[in-house]
Amino acid sequence: METKSLLHCAYVASLVVFLVLGIQDSVQGRLLSVSKPDPKSAAAFARWLVSQNYWGVLNTISSDLGGAPFGNVVSFSDGLPDKGSGIPYFYLTTLDPTARNALKDHRSSLTISEYPIGTCGTRDPENPACAKITLTGKLVLVDNNSKEAEFAQSALFTKHPEMKEWPEDHNFQFFKLETKDIFLINWFGGPKPLTVDQYLHPEM
Amino acid sequence: METKSLLHCAYVASLVVFLVLGIQDSVQGRLLSVSKPDPKSAAAFARWLVSQNYWGVLNTISSDLGGAPFGNVVSFSDGLPDKGSGIPYFYLTTLDPTARNALKDHRSSLTISEYPIGTCGTRDPENPACAKITLTGKLVLVDNNSKEAEFAQSALFTKHPEMKEWPEDHNFQFFKLETKDIFLINWFGGPKPLTVDQYLHPEM
Repeated sequence: METKSLLHCAYVASLVVFLVLGIQDSVQGRLLSVSKPDPKSAAAFARWLVSQNYWGVLNTISSDLGGAPFGNVVSFSDGLPDKGSGIPYFYLTTLDPTARNALKDHRSSLTISEYPIGTCGTRDPENPACAKITLTGKLVLVDNNSKEAEFAQSALFTKHPEMKEWPEDHNFQFFKLETKDIFLINWFGGPKPLTVDQYLHPEM
Repeated sequence: METKSLLHCAYVASLVVFLVLGIQDSVQGRLLSVSKPDPKSAAAFARWLVSQNYWGVLNTISSDLGGAPFGNVVSFSDGLPDKGSGIPYFYLTTLDPTARNALKDHRSSLTISEYPIGTCGTRDPENPACAKITLTGKLVLVDNNSKEAEFAQSALFTKHPEMKEWPEDHNFQFFKLETKDIFLINWFGGPKPLTVDQYLHPEM
């Protein structure tokens, strides 16, 4: 082939790659519009991780299972994209054990991995340089007639559009995690010291 | 361009796509060599989910955090690829709270999502048709001089090659979850009834 054809060919190939990646992204992930902070900036990094991921595992105490810790895959949102509050909101129904458990015993944690965001490179999900965060605290119902419920709805429905269509007779309600302790691993050397106050008011 | 050039170009483009997907796959997921079972076949489906995913959230009771349920991102393996045993094995160090918690209180659960496998289509991670499983039971140490430790090592190091290089002075040890209860959601209509015996001996 001549040079012009080769160039055209490279252009077509890159277009195809772009399209394939675009379709993949719409299914498995979201485009990152904010770049990953330096791991040394614990608060900024934690806020980035919570705002960029949109699902995790929500843990409660299961009285049905002898007080065992019971993890459940959930979607969450801490605010509009790139306008996160650091407070994770959920849309749960008491048809599911997690909401039932929380109404009996508020103790809870939310665990989020950097891995599905796609920024861990070739690192294993358990490698400390592939970040993970666990927010521990109380899982509580948000008053349905409050400004906070409006915020939760907007935060959740923007990141999880199909929630708008979930069946009304399932009585989904907004919950939030009131964080009391933060466990953040985002590099070698053990958990990063990070208070809830630093997390909620990070110097960006 | 003439037809031959066009064909060559299409070939180059498909090669590039294949390479890009291949590289992505080695980072974010693994090729599925076993197809997803019918959601109605609860045991086969549960075994597929546990053998095809390779990371999840392992939950323990944290006495340091007032008995709160504490989730932690971990890598696991239930056996060589496509030869899963259904029993999840882990490689943990007591430098991390999860192993410390388990040695004080065995109650534990492992939560795994279908979402990162990439077979949920455009469904939200909390959509019941995007499967999730929680195995609840006891998190126990595997005797280091047993055949089972050899199996655990082979199962883990095959799916997580970098584990071989993890620092010796961290004293990583093999743990396993002895499952007592299974919570599987893989379609609409609530959790699928599934006993541990059915899970361990599925009709494939």
